[in-house]
Parts: sequence; structure tokens; C-alpha cells
Amino acid sequence: MSLADEILQGNVRAAARLMRDVEDGAPSAPEELKKLYPFTGNAHIIGVTGAPGVGKSTVVDKMVEFLRKDSKDVGVIAIDPTSPFGGGALLGDRIRMQRHTADPGVFMRSYATRGHLGGLSRATYDTVKVMEALGKDVILIETVGVGQDEVDILHAADTCIVILVPGLGDHIQTMKGGLLEIADIYVINKSSRNGADELAADLTFMLEMGTQRSSRWIPPICRTEASTGEGVTGVMDAVQRHWGLIQEAGLREQRERQRARTDFLEILNSSLIREAMHRLGQRTVDRIVETIVAREHDPYSAAEDVIRNFFKKAR
Amino acid sequence: MSLADEILQGNVRAAARLMRDVEDGAPSAPEELKKLYPFTGNAHIIGVTGAPGVGKSTVVDKMVEFLRKDSKDVGVIAIDPTSPFGGGALLGDRIRMQRHTADPGVFMRSYATRGHLGGLSRATYDTVKVMEALGKDVILIETVGVGQDEVDILHAADTCIVILVPGLGDHIQTMKGGLLEIADIYVINKSSRNGADELAADLTFMLEMGTQRSSRWIPPICRTEASTGEGVTGVMDAVQRHWGLIQEAGLREQRERQRARTDFLEILNSSLIREAMHRLGQRTVDRIVETIVAREHDPYSAAEDVIRNFFKKAR
Repeated sequence: MSLADEILQGNVRAAARLMRDVEDGAPSAPEELKKLYPFTGNAHIIGVTGAPGVGKSTVVDKMVEFLRKDSKDVGVIAIDPTSPFGGGALLGDRIRMQRHTADPGVFMRSYATRGHLGGLSRATYDTVKVMEALGKDVILIETVGVGQDEVDILHAADTCIVILVPGLGDHIQTMKGGLLEIADIYVINKSSRNGADELAADLTFMLEMGTQRSSRWIPPICRTEASTGEGVTGVMDAVQRHWGLIQEAGLREQRERQRARTDFLEILNSSLIREAMHRLGQRTVDRIVETIVAREHDPYSAAEDVIRNFFKKAR
Repeated sequence: MSLADEILQGNVRAAARLMRDVEDGAPSAPEELKKLYPFTGNAHIIGVTGAPGVGKSTVVDKMVEFLRKDSKDVGVIAIDPTSPFGGGALLGDRIRMQRHTADPGVFMRSYATRGHLGGLSRATYDTVKVMEALGKDVILIETVGVGQDEVDILHAADTCIVILVPGLGDHIQTMKGGLLEIADIYVINKSSRNGADELAADLTFMLEMGTQRSSRWIPPICRTEASTGEGVTGVMDAVQRHWGLIQEAGLREQRERQRARTDFLEILNSSLIREAMHRLGQRTVDRIVETIVAREHDPYSAAEDVIRNFFKKAR
């Protein structure tokens, strides 16, 4: 039985194995993903973002708990910022999530922000596919949201939750950059802290000033105390309403079309370069590099020459 | 006169214009870069990294001052993390650097970490080329060093400076990940603070435990108080010694070969996808995407079909 068959029968180990194969660029992985593809595209993909320390993992943890009580199968993809600096708190968050590992209805996968063949977003999208094929109803993607890849991932989600905490002070100005277009739901976590009302008022003001993803949806502002679970029901209620709206309004289909386009173009892109490398061969690449180092040639012209040689003349 | 000709005559405005063209993906940009290519590859490229708040910009500012006194032409590329969160301090740093803007011997360019056609590292490498063609002797690249693109950029530098400050406590554990292989020089900034001796001792211990880029070079640990300029001479002395060593040991050539390879492969990659898109045409792409959305086709097989059609049969 192929990995794909096992995954379609709900085999979690087979799913984990294929995810590793995808990450390692195993030649067998695309064949398995092909077989899974017809069974993908149905999960509700939820992006959860916020600065380090706002309690993303705790909120996600409580959301998982809620969804499990509702008999939903859940996938969690946690993207950990890879940095030589800081980030010591992350491991604790991960450990906290471990309590769901005994639950077969929860599949959890962590990714670092670097070191992925084909990029972080590619690895994440393929993981989403495997989780969908495994029968997950809801997939939560947790990320700090820094860098192009992570922002792309948030844009590709059906519903995006942005978490803030009171008292960080200056983030109102700095968040203007990208949050308004990304957020479908705001969560003010640690909302018993001073400044929660001001933060909510500022957000409301900004939302009234700014543009929304869809005029039919004004991002609600939910308040939580995720460590106790307070307010999480309100968040899940907003999530459900958003999911209902985007399906009704055809936005879900639009997002799915966008994901299919990205999938196709990214896979085409990596296949093109792989095929080109294969046809050139390592020795020819080395020779070309030497002429570039010697400045006899420039990389732009060298690439043009290769392309002229590769493509069929006729269109 | 072409932009390239003007740049080779030292025209700063022409250089800024070409950098914008590169970022915007203007079709004319590769032609100009081709003409510049023979005049590139000679600058000393220095990466400067460290967590937010360690004083990267202040250190860079003082390094620029030192290099200018030494009659060196200097380029600075500052990579600002793009995040909806935090980052309020960055603007102040940028403003501080402005005092060099009146000096024609300093060329400064800032990049956000997102929104670059072809990626951040591509934009940065092309900017380095333009600065080299403009006659810059030293190019400083300042980055927080989070994410694959930024780490790639640091790896491509000739000399990499990692800045730390005392009292952040937990970074010794967390820095094990990537710093030892990246750092050629450590700088302990704000070194009058408590904990500088401990930090230096910890670094020394780690260096003795870890592996170095080259056994002929043990990364020195410099102490600075960049706001007053104290210790910057020591940093520049270490930079000079490292530059001497890597040239002597053939490491500089090795790095340049690696850069040429990256240039070629990245340019080939983006040229391949551009050519493929051009040959397919928007309507065919749309049609393929629809079959994928409908799950009649999967993106892997669709990409294979396209490639089979494109490449010449014979090898």
C-alpha cells in the first residue's frame, strides 16, 4: 500500500512520514501528493498571528480544545521563527501543546522559518494538503507573521486571526502596515490588563478608517484571557460566522482558486529549475560559474543562453 | 548614455534609479546589470547582524565614519524587518544614519524584508553589484538575520559581524543554532553594562567548543560602546585582519565563486518561469488553474505536462 493510500485511511504515521519526505525533497513525494490531491481543498484553514509573547500558542490550544468538543478533526501547523537570537519562550509553548498529542483527533506539526527546500510556504501548503487528505476539518496555522513567506501563508488562509495584548503601546502606529488587510478577527488577549479598552477603541477607530477584505465583514474584536480559556467561545463564534460568510459570498472559492494558482506556479517553478539542472549537468554548471567568476560572462547572459538552448523554437 | 555608463562614471542618481528598476522588475534592468557585471566582485562585503536593540545601526554608523576617514568609499544596505508588530525603534536608527547622506562617499539603501520581486536576497545581491560598479570599496549589510533570505545574505558576505549586548541572559543557549558558523567577529556592544565579562567568557567557551569557518581564524570578541565610538577601532582592526586572511587563504575567491553560482542559478530560475509564463499565456494558465480547482488535475501533473511540452526532446 502506498503512503497516500495509508494516509487516506487515516494513518497518522504515514502522514508524518510523507511530510518528512516533502521536506527532504524525496523524489517519491510528488507522486504521493498527486494521489492525495483529489481529497484536498475542503478544510477550514485558519491563520493565527501576533507578536511573540501575545499568547498565540495558548489561544490555539484553547481553540483546539473547543473544536475537539465539537467533534472536529484538527490539524495544527506551528511556524517557529528561526533566529540565533531570543525565542526562548517558544519551547514552553510547544510543550504546552503536547497535551493534545495523545488525542488522535489532533495532528500537530512544527516548522522552523528556515531550511526548507522550496521555501517555507511550499512546505506549509503541502502539509496542509496532507492534513486535508487525512480528514482534518480545521487546520490552524500559527505564525509570528514576519517575512514574505509567513505573510503569504496568512494571506492564503480562509480566516486570519490577529492577536494583540494591551500595553505594548506603540503598536497602533506600526500595525497600520499590514494588519488591516490581513485580519478577519482581532483578539485582545490578556484582556484583564490595563489598556484593553484603549486598545479596543483604537482598533475600532482604525477599522472604521481603513478598508476591509470584504465590505460584508467588519472584523470583530474579541477579548480573551486564554490562560483560563475565558472568551475563547466568542472567538470560535466569530470564526464560525466568518466561515459561513466566505462560503456564502463565494470568497472561499476565490481563496481556493488563488491557492491552486500558487500551487501550480510554485511547483512549475521548482520543476523547471530541477529539469534545467538535470539537463545541464553539474559539470556544465561549474563551467558556466567559472566564466562568470572570471567576468568573461555575466549571469544574465548565461541564463539567456541556457534558456535559448532549452526551449523548443515553435510556440 | 545608458544608466550603466552613468553609474560607471559615479553617478549616484543613476545608481538609485537602477536599484528602483531592479526592485520594480523593469525589463531594462537586466541589460544594465549585464553591462555593470565586469566591474563587480571587488568590494569587501561585510554583514552586520544582531537582535533588535543591540545597536546595529550605531555600530554601522561608526564603522562608516572610520572607513570615511580612511578614504574608503562605502555602501550601506539596511534591511528592515517588515512586521505588522513592533519595530518602532528602527526609524530612529535610520534617521541617525542620515548624517552621512550629505557625504558623496557614502551610498545608503534600505530594504524591507518583504515585497521584493524575486526575493530579498536577489534584490540585495543586485544592489551590491550596483554599489560595486559605482566604485564602493566596502559594503556594509545590516540585518536582524531572521529568516532564510537574511541568513543567506549573511552567509554570502565576506566578513560577518555578530553584535550582542550583555544582560539578555538566555541568548547563550539560543544562539547555538546559527551564530557560531556565521560569525567571523563578535562585538559586545553596550559593554559597560553589567554582564559583559560573563558574556565574553561564555562566548569564548562556546568558540572553544564549536567549529569555526576556518581553523586559521578564531573569531575575536570586541567590546564597544558604539554611542560614543569606543572600541570601534578594535572592530575595524579585526575586520581588516579578517579581510587579509580570507584573501590570502583563497577564501575570498571561494566566497565569490559561491556568489557567482547563486547569481546564475537564481537568475536562471526566474528567467525560466518568466519564459514559461510567456509561452503559456495567461489564458492557458487560467484554464489549468480551473482544472486544478475542480480536482480534475493536480498541480504536479499539470507542471509535468507543461515541462514535457516546453523542453526539446533531445538532450
